Amino acid sequence: MSETQMPTARTRVVREADRAVYDRETVYRILDEGFLCHAGFVVDGQPFVIPTSYGRKDASLYIHGSAASRMLRQLKDGVPFCITVTLLEGLVLARSIFNHSMNYRSVVVLGKATLVEDPDEKLEALRILSEHILPGRWADSRQPNERELKATSVLRVPIEEFSAKVRQGPAIDDEEDYSFPTWAGVVPLEMTAGAPIDDARLLPGKEAPAYAKHYTRSR
Amino acid sequence: MSETQMPTARTRVVREADRAVYDRETVYRILDEGFLCHAGFVVDGQPFVIPTSYGRKDASLYIHGSAASRMLRQLKDGVPFCITVTLLEGLVLARSIFNHSMNYRSVVVLGKATLVEDPDEKLEALRILSEHILPGRWADSRQPNERELKATSVLRVPIEEFSAKVRQGPAIDDEEDYSFPTWAGVVPLEMTAGAPIDDARLLPGKEAPAYAKHYTRSR
Repeated sequence: MSETQMPTARTRVVREADRAVYDRETVYRILDEGFLCHAGFVVDGQPFVIPTSYGRKDASLYIHGSAASRMLRQLKDGVPFCITVTLLEGLVLARSIFNHSMNYRSVVVLGKATLVEDPDEKLEALRILSEHILPGRWADSRQPNERELKATSVLRVPIEEFSAKVRQGPAIDDEEDYSFPTWAGVVPLEMTAGAPIDDARLLPGKEAPAYAKHYTRSR
Repeated sequence: MSETQMPTARTRVVREADRAVYDRETVYRILDEGFLCHAGFVVDGQPFVIPTSYGRKDASLYIHGSAASRMLRQLKDGVPFCITVTLLEGLVLARSIFNHSMNYRSVVVLGKATLVEDPDEKLEALRILSEHILPGRWADSRQPNERELKATSVLRVPIEEFSAKVRQGPAIDDEEDYSFPTWAGVVPLEMTAGAPIDDARLLPGKEAPAYAKHYTRSR
């Protein structure tokens, strides 16, 4: 696969261009920390945006779903799509309303997906997806059988045309606003995991594994 | 505004239809708990999905941004859009890989936006947006001046065609899998706020207000 020069005209960040990042390493770090994306596709000129989980292997994203899903039916036909991943990190409270902002890291990937049809690649893609969300879980679960594999579609999405946006740090006010008599600062936000909730029908002696007890997205 | 009968052909949930919710009250509750949406729009057949904040008043969503933003330039022309809000609530670990899931509440709103051009409505929309994200902050901030208002676009998005999807509760395994020897359960996830970080240039005696110290999205 030849490397497209980033940004393309379509991925060049227009708004707040100083927040734009185009290097693959930063993009991968964001994609690997997140696990929920918003997938955009078009049906009859109408955009649809659907939340779904994903996994990454090298320069490929994998998403999956029921073969009946509207999204995947469309994507199978090669409809263009957009995968966006957003990690929200804080509310930025400036002195002026205008300079209020959010701290976040986000990635936009544009391209066309291909349906993964080879049975071995499909199973491997599902393992990648599962391990991306919850490392260690795949080996502890009952593996997919033929019926389930048939009922699942997996799409491979090449990470070729992409951009990232990163905003971190304190509020930036206009110089004349620093004398305005109000508090300013950042309210940090993060996604946190609570204590695992045991299923009501657990077999005796089955305790929550470490990956469920200490779940975190920091890598 | 006449009430469209929900779901329309475009908002009928196809995948996991048992999780679909179409009542306005549930949709509003999800929209009011969230404050980050993923806005989808189409440029030359290519979908774009952009994270942005929003506010709600009655049956209207407001989003904003720089007048230079690619998204808003497009939307001003009446391009169809999709606003999706997702509240992630947990990882659902079933015995089988196939029945793994997530707990979440999400809303999809389809329609066309109109640019808010009346200055009074625009200022009020910005107040609604600000108060939606951080109630109490508007009155404590330096208000927008004419130059800033000019540099900001505000769009009104009618909440007319919409659907919600809600998945909550424990894992649901196939009956024969309940004897599979693994742990199953739910890892709850939530967005939590940390202690506010003071700006380095605070005026003496300015302390973080309660809305920053005890930030929460539960209403």
